[in-house]
Amino acid sequence: MPFHIEYERTIPARRPQGHQPAAPRFSLRWTRPVPALVSVYFGIQAKSLAWPAENGFYDTLRQMFAGEDGPQAHETMRCEDEAGYTNGIMVAYWTDPTRYARWADQAGFRAWFEQEGHLNGDAGYWCEAIVVPYDRHETIYSAPNYRIGFGRTPDTEVVPITNNGFFGAARDRLPVSAIDALDAPIEPLAGRQRESAGAHLMVQVPHNVTILRSGQYWEGAGQEQLQDYMQSLQPKLLRGMRYLSDNKEATGCMSLRIMTNLNDDGSPRAETSVLGAFSSMHKLEQWAASHETHLDIYRHAIAMNRLHKEKREVVTWHELFVLLMGNCFEYVNCHPATGMLPYGQAWRCSRP
Amino acid sequence: MPFHIEYERTIPARRPQGHQPAAPRFSLRWTRPVPALVSVYFGIQAKSLAWPAENGFYDTLRQMFAGEDGPQAHETMRCEDEAGYTNGIMVAYWTDPTRYARWADQAGFRAWFEQEGHLNGDAGYWCEAIVVPYDRHETIYSAPNYRIGFGRTPDTEVVPITNNGFFGAARDRLPVSAIDALDAPIEPLAGRQRESAGAHLMVQVPHNVTILRSGQYWEGAGQEQLQDYMQSLQPKLLRGMRYLSDNKEATGCMSLRIMTNLNDDGSPRAETSVLGAFSSMHKLEQWAASHETHLDIYRHAIAMNRLHKEKREVVTWHELFVLLMGNCFEYVNCHPATGMLPYGQAWRCSRP
Repeated sequence: MPFHIEYERTIPARRPQGHQPAAPRFSLRWTRPVPALVSVYFGIQAKSLAWPAENGFYDTLRQMFAGEDGPQAHETMRCEDEAGYTNGIMVAYWTDPTRYARWADQAGFRAWFEQEGHLNGDAGYWCEAIVVPYDRHETIYSAPNYRIGFGRTPDTEVVPITNNGFFGAARDRLPVSAIDALDAPIEPLAGRQRESAGAHLMVQVPHNVTILRSGQYWEGAGQEQLQDYMQSLQPKLLRGMRYLSDNKEATGCMSLRIMTNLNDDGSPRAETSVLGAFSSMHKLEQWAASHETHLDIYRHAIAMNRLHKEKREVVTWHELFVLLMGNCFEYVNCHPATGMLPYGQAWRCSRP
Repeated sequence: MPFHIEYERTIPARRPQGHQPAAPRFSLRWTRPVPALVSVYFGIQAKSLAWPAENGFYDTLRQMFAGEDGPQAHETMRCEDEAGYTNGIMVAYWTDPTRYARWADQAGFRAWFEQEGHLNGDAGYWCEAIVVPYDRHETIYSAPNYRIGFGRTPDTEVVPITNNGFFGAARDRLPVSAIDALDAPIEPLAGRQRESAGAHLMVQVPHNVTILRSGQYWEGAGQEQLQDYMQSLQPKLLRGMRYLSDNKEATGCMSLRIMTNLNDDGSPRAETSVLGAFSSMHKLEQWAASHETHLDIYRHAIAMNRLHKEKREVVTWHELFVLLMGNCFEYVNCHPATGMLPYGQAWRCSRP
């Protein structure tokens, strides 16, 4: 049996009595205990980001990843953010917080990240480290055979699940939701403009902020399914994302990055990921359960799964984390709308 | 059945086969799920701390505690630290991190703590907030009827245990120790001197730092047991603490405060608490299992328990937390040897 945590419920499940999911879905499990999960998003940001600079950033990180405390998996992605800046993004995954802590202290990242020149160059740099106890994460995959995100770390299995296909299913899949309502301490959160140019700012991410990496993979899809994805599912997805970006306070969406996964030469893969931060599970659920932009995405994805069954060539998936307080996100010389910069307790930092 | 977490072990228990404890011991449980525990130590520090200033500090905090998101229990204590400064200390306990997060944001603490005048007055101020998932804590009490520390929060029970009285028992009582070795990422940790006067410094406490509040209560003890405590157990305890203070790097002891519990008028109670921070469980265990200064305390306490049984009038107890990375301790205008100031990643902070 793979490792998993289950609590005796004091909070009822959302799963309707006798529920049968409309389409098969899968979750990730590890074959050894994983008390905590770490995913760190490293970013370089510029108005116009040249490939040599972006590639140099990835290379620097890859070199730091090479030691035995380096991450168990990593990927590169690119996005144009809402302020029109290009962000080159490396995400790295650790399944052992002790090894991550050792890496963070000893692999040279701090000296590189905090170097004087980063404060006043053309580029900004950021680092969003997500560290959660196991019981504050959940995953879902539309197919069992494509590995991505935490799914690329060793000692994993993809297992079929039945707690999917109803509203509240993501919450039910979070082990801690059996005993914790996961409410936001304060909601709605109003963003504010902070002086971020030339500064190293640290943001303490509010308790129970919910971060979702949601992915779409269509490499090798045949003409019919490719065309459906490009002409129907992807536009619906982008429309939904635009609605979230345009209605931040109402939806609790604090940050949204629509990222294209990259090959090592910087060319785009047939794969995208959306990284969204929400002020609470509740806010994310509200949009998912009730807003037509999400219902539209959801119904189309399910319909395609039912139509093509195991011949479905487009994979959709997500990994979700509800943060315990204590996660610090850092921004060096970034524009003030970057990531979590407008939210939470923020500090201008220097070394004593 | 009260709430508790147990994992299927992949790391063997330390408990010897067939072990029978030499003396009865007890642990704290909650009658409802408690996914995370919060204990925050607030301090005021001065070379010479007058009671009006100390009392004003406690009053300010008590007023902030009065709302519905305030702590479920709190206590005042005083210690003279190793630099010879007097520290007035308020410890506050929350069993709901969402309520703590709301309190921290809305009760006025930040504005008060960060006020300009605190940076350059005669006093220093500090705040050490410990937030741990439930599976990273354990407690032990020599008697079931005296409530202190987390034991004063509502919805608790004191239950008899049998995983005590062998070396490694504290580790066995930590639920997460079944699946996590709880190693320090880096050890030994060397402290360094940081410019802390007139500054607001934030320290990110290293992963798996182990914090122990260990308490002694002898109020109402009769002459025989009082005399034994004062002439034998207390001197042994102080000798052990002195050894830790004098051998920081070897013992992994980063900070040690020998605190006297106070009545509301500032007079000392017949009660003390030692708050110690160690670089890892392993380091704390090494001292406890092998050093004669601890064996001496331990043997005497057990001998007195066996001699007096349920008539034992001195209560000893502790609560222990192994921190996940992400705990931030803050120091405003404190001397550089205060608490965790010499360790971990430290930042000089201001508001952007």
